[in-house]
Amino acid sequence: MADPVSALAGSAVGVVGGGQLAMLLAAAARRLEVPLHIQTPSAQDPAAALATSVVLANLDDISATRELARRSGAITFENEWLDLPALAPLGFEGVVFLPSLEALSPLVCKRRQRQLLQGLGLPTPRWCELPTDGVLPADFAYPLMAKLASGGYDGKGTVVLGGPGELASLQARVPQGDWILEEMVPFELELSQLACRDRDGNLQCYPLVETHQHQQVCDWVLAPAHVPQAVQAYARNIAASLITAINYVGVLTIEFFYGPGGLQVNEIAPRTHNSGHLTIEASHTSQFEQQVRIVSGLPMGSVALRVPGALMVNLLGFESSANDYPSQREALAALPDASVHWYGKQGSNAGRKLGHITLLLSGASPQERALEAEQLLARVRSIWPLPGA
Amino acid sequence: MADPVSALAGSAVGVVGGGQLAMLLAAAARRLEVPLHIQTPSAQDPAAALATSVVLANLDDISATRELARRSGAITFENEWLDLPALAPLGFEGVVFLPSLEALSPLVCKRRQRQLLQGLGLPTPRWCELPTDGVLPADFAYPLMAKLASGGYDGKGTVVLGGPGELASLQARVPQGDWILEEMVPFELELSQLACRDRDGNLQCYPLVETHQHQQVCDWVLAPAHVPQAVQAYARNIAASLITAINYVGVLTIEFFYGPGGLQVNEIAPRTHNSGHLTIEASHTSQFEQQVRIVSGLPMGSVALRVPGALMVNLLGFESSANDYPSQREALAALPDASVHWYGKQGSNAGRKLGHITLLLSGASPQERALEAEQLLARVRSIWPLPGA
Repeated sequence: MADPVSALAGSAVGVVGGGQLAMLLAAAARRLEVPLHIQTPSAQDPAAALATSVVLANLDDISATRELARRSGAITFENEWLDLPALAPLGFEGVVFLPSLEALSPLVCKRRQRQLLQGLGLPTPRWCELPTDGVLPADFAYPLMAKLASGGYDGKGTVVLGGPGELASLQARVPQGDWILEEMVPFELELSQLACRDRDGNLQCYPLVETHQHQQVCDWVLAPAHVPQAVQAYARNIAASLITAINYVGVLTIEFFYGPGGLQVNEIAPRTHNSGHLTIEASHTSQFEQQVRIVSGLPMGSVALRVPGALMVNLLGFESSANDYPSQREALAALPDASVHWYGKQGSNAGRKLGHITLLLSGASPQERALEAEQLLARVRSIWPLPGA
Repeated sequence: MADPVSALAGSAVGVVGGGQLAMLLAAAARRLEVPLHIQTPSAQDPAAALATSVVLANLDDISATRELARRSGAITFENEWLDLPALAPLGFEGVVFLPSLEALSPLVCKRRQRQLLQGLGLPTPRWCELPTDGVLPADFAYPLMAKLASGGYDGKGTVVLGGPGELASLQARVPQGDWILEEMVPFELELSQLACRDRDGNLQCYPLVETHQHQQVCDWVLAPAHVPQAVQAYARNIAASLITAINYVGVLTIEFFYGPGGLQVNEIAPRTHNSGHLTIEASHTSQFEQQVRIVSGLPMGSVALRVPGALMVNLLGFESSANDYPSQREALAALPDASVHWYGKQGSNAGRKLGHITLLLSGASPQERALEAEQLLARVRSIWPLPGA
């Protein structure tokens, strides 16, 4: 067997997953002329048409992942809902995972994320186990956030508990659920830091961005974040410490609460992320191109913005429908410096991420860009309503 | 789940294996008052009586290893014939292996050992794949050593090939065997370097020893080796480079050829080793105590010799017999500064390692100790014959 690392340079990428993140990875791979193969259950999934080839199988089908590996130099994942024990034998059969299963191991579970952050002395909300007897530890008080340790996303798997009655009700409803409890962190703003590290240990951090949620789903993102330089430096340092400590290779995202308590890590996503979609148009190297470059063994590109700023707005489903909204997409694309990405999902329902639009900002100051973004967001809203609005 | 490393300190050790190495580990653990549990198929195996508890199962029974892990803070292995893909899921279930499966991965196969050594620029005999068409690569010539990539030991799984006829005959005899071919390295002496590294990365190297074989099985060992200081330093540097590069935790042994071409790595054993048995009496900390200390999270002890030198002679079976040789063992134990270790195996046959004897040497110079060793070896031989002699 050849040395698994040096054999990778420029080689094909395998992606377990076929959703919009895989689709945007596949688009980046096409531009780089890097073959990219996916494993996904349906040929109608967003990434299928753009991938070089598709292994049609459920995401947890290990023999399909073995076949994906046969076609690829290294394998990466679209999401972190992974059965690492089931994948582990492939690692010893010579399959290269980037990031490695060892690096993913502390990130695929919210409890282990908290333990990792605590172990590294990085700022993280206080947490405890869900008490089986209903009695909170002495230094915890309601309200608390209950989080499913594995498998939650976009607000799914998180429940605010106002008091012991709601705790009892949660336990009655999901007696087998593996939950942790976190203190509610007061914050003014949510921030997101994208970082990337290649197989030689080189590390880069994208500019920090603001993320704005609607009903616990990412609604819009503004780059760069309008926060003091020291906060930006702190976010970069947290990302650099974490990604290096676990020897992570690839793109990784850290979501922060920012408020009176300073920065606190909310969640870590071991992958490209919705908050980085605007890098496609706004950065010299998009998060997707960067991930493909790293996994296929090409040198990383620059993560600097090539414009003063950018606004990304998610196109969230606002109704149950089979409509694919051609006229709205046309109108959105006609906005100034706008790029519409449509994921081609089969059907819409409220809150589903159907696509996104990125709008470049030209204002020289944060204040000018904030105003620009506000006006552009209003124009997007006039074409594409918020769900439930 | 608690941090797997800090939770280990002083904790119970699990050993997959029940032979003499496991027995000597169990004896060391008793002296340290560290619980040590083993997995072995028979309650009559050498280590069973000394272990704190025994999981009676074949060594490749993964659910038995899971049970062993339940009783132990960390698991170590008596030998390197491991099915790493089968063990890998346990790693992601939270089982701690020391050394890790990742560190073992390049060592459990002779081909990967050669690739690892080449990749690190360490001296290793030239090798090639067994040619399927019978035609050697241009720069290889007979005689060559054929080695089974996995599972060989004590000369089993190695065949000297004098010419193409013997290659054809090997291929006809074991058509499915996974063999590599190595050039024959001319040497004057075989040397062995024991090294150990703890979970914090601290590294120590035992004094280099000479190993002398009889019919490809270790016959006797002399410590320290009588070779120039520069050779001792080179052997230590090779061990330090290798053990650090693969982030190996535990005791590891490197066997060398030493001759006109300088040092060449013959084999790497990821474990305690026959060439280190004399450390029980001759060193401040034996290889077995050191391994137990590392795996149970205790600080390592000194690897220095506490006497000028030592001779270890294997008590190899010289006949097929159910005799356990009480009078010979009595006579051996009566030799000056002698310690006899008897493994209590069920029955003897020619070449089987039934026990060993260590004799301390007091000579101040290498020449004096060589003479002492020669005389003591003759006295051992007068009591315990060589097989086939």
